[in-house]
Amino acid sequence: MAPQDALSDALSADMAAVNALIRARMASEHAPRIPEVTAHLVEAGGKRLRPLLTLAAARMLGYGGQDHVKLAATVEFIHTATLLHDDVVDESQRRRGRPTANLLWDNKSSVLVGDYLFARSFQLMVETGSLRVLDILANASATIAEGEVLQLTAAQDLKTDEAIYLQVIRGKTAALFAAATEVGGVIAGADERHVTALRDYGDALGIAFQIVDDMLDYGGSATVIGKNTGDDFRERKLTLPLIKAVARATAEERSFWTRVIEKGDQQEGDLAQAMAILARHDAISACRLDALGWAAKAKAAVNSLPEHPLRDILSRLADFVVSRVA
Amino acid sequence: MAPQDALSDALSADMAAVNALIRARMASEHAPRIPEVTAHLVEAGGKRLRPLLTLAAARMLGYGGQDHVKLAATVEFIHTATLLHDDVVDESQRRRGRPTANLLWDNKSSVLVGDYLFARSFQLMVETGSLRVLDILANASATIAEGEVLQLTAAQDLKTDEAIYLQVIRGKTAALFAAATEVGGVIAGADERHVTALRDYGDALGIAFQIVDDMLDYGGSATVIGKNTGDDFRERKLTLPLIKAVARATAEERSFWTRVIEKGDQQEGDLAQAMAILARHDAISACRLDALGWAAKAKAAVNSLPEHPLRDILSRLADFVVSRVA
Repeated sequence: MAPQDALSDALSADMAAVNALIRARMASEHAPRIPEVTAHLVEAGGKRLRPLLTLAAARMLGYGGQDHVKLAATVEFIHTATLLHDDVVDESQRRRGRPTANLLWDNKSSVLVGDYLFARSFQLMVETGSLRVLDILANASATIAEGEVLQLTAAQDLKTDEAIYLQVIRGKTAALFAAATEVGGVIAGADERHVTALRDYGDALGIAFQIVDDMLDYGGSATVIGKNTGDDFRERKLTLPLIKAVARATAEERSFWTRVIEKGDQQEGDLAQAMAILARHDAISACRLDALGWAAKAKAAVNSLPEHPLRDILSRLADFVVSRVA
Repeated sequence: MAPQDALSDALSADMAAVNALIRARMASEHAPRIPEVTAHLVEAGGKRLRPLLTLAAARMLGYGGQDHVKLAATVEFIHTATLLHDDVVDESQRRRGRPTANLLWDNKSSVLVGDYLFARSFQLMVETGSLRVLDILANASATIAEGEVLQLTAAQDLKTDEAIYLQVIRGKTAALFAAATEVGGVIAGADERHVTALRDYGDALGIAFQIVDDMLDYGGSATVIGKNTGDDFRERKLTLPLIKAVARATAEERSFWTRVIEKGDQQEGDLAQAMAILARHDAISACRLDALGWAAKAKAAVNSLPEHPLRDILSRLADFVVSRVA
């Protein structure tokens, strides 16, 4: 069984409570547009990976209360809010196999319903009464937003290096993974070293996950990733495969990258040409090594925690994330 | 001296600290787009009314600490974030006499920098360590976002009544005014009845303020309100003057409103016609009575607080807000 499914199974009662809470809190007595837009996205059957991470972290550290359900719903609301805003920013047309909310309704609704979900997540976390949890999620929110702006300004800029890329994907993915696992440990009252290990696990897992996603954009199949190969290329995003290829570029290749990425002058055959250059410099293989390195870090972190069946699933999850490109 | 200027004078040292904090916290080491966009708006010389309300509330209730500065900056960040998102939603071109950020940069930057400022405000309020303050601001954030969505769906709908209008303007204006004054009292450790009076003052002041703004859109001059008469009419917004006129409409007037507001089929001379109908039903006078009623509520609330020079300025402020249409 895939580790995500194993997590879902092991945490099914908790997850049912999370889903009930999400449905209750996305309601709005006065503005029916809010639950319409939210339900469109929430019920499209996302993997619910982030709330599962929070629940797993809390349970494996022995938590017996119910506040982890609030935190798991919080994390999913933050994730949903960022997806709504991302789709506006990226002018996306499809998400989770459906037309995006900005397409079905309008950009206005996506912006404002995203704001509403962020406010709702904020109310939920305040209800836990833990200032430390609030501090973690406030910092994660700032990292997410800063990473998104950084991605916007780094796009089309060939000077974007691996350090900037790491900041972007921490904002885009890893910050919320790390906060999701960390708050699970905090609410469970875990030892500091265990809280740190949980945060490190989420951070490394998120980074591995995003590197793999960015690799698949230059070689995965549409069925695996649910989007078309070459999207990042067409949107002129400086993701890791491209950054590595640019760093190793010959003079001739450099003018190719300048034309297609910086100037955006893309012609028939340019994607194939880009992938040939990536192959010539082993850029994808280099990305794979990085992803495997982060997955190993994630496993080392989670394996430093006390023995628990959930711990073993989380460890397998780190392998699974990189198995898509292994 | 206008009461806002009197507030600025009386609180100039505190306000200097707020401005320094705003500048420090809008910085971003990695994404220079963030301070660029924020500075464009923050340094356009807004009135800083909301942070002044927080500072005044805290000081008049005897607060001697420095956390009110953090809360004042929090409130201004939330306000700035909502302005950035509002301008995207309304496709605005000018704000505070300058081109809007969505026009100078793009919608993407406005959405993401707004998210960043909201996250920064969240970090600032967590630093005060007051769960009650966090609860108030989380609830205000949800009311603001819900009101914005409600405004979106209520626009162009002639069924919008005064109750819905009140919810919209509580979200748009009064919720943040009320939170601004309430958190000032909470951080000062004021008695419950004083905290309630402060919240009631902010709520009523905000409602009066927004009713006046909506009245001016059907009769103020461009220099007073910084935007052109008739904007709400052209955007087919159901504000109070229109709601009152629709409620009293003859059959013939009703088909006029259906054409220009619901169908959006506006022709030369329709604004003048709309204003003539408003005059025929004394709609503006009825709005004025409502605004005066809310200003009186605000004064009654603030005058129930202990005597203080700042209290008298806040009381004068309630009169001043409605003096634009007196």
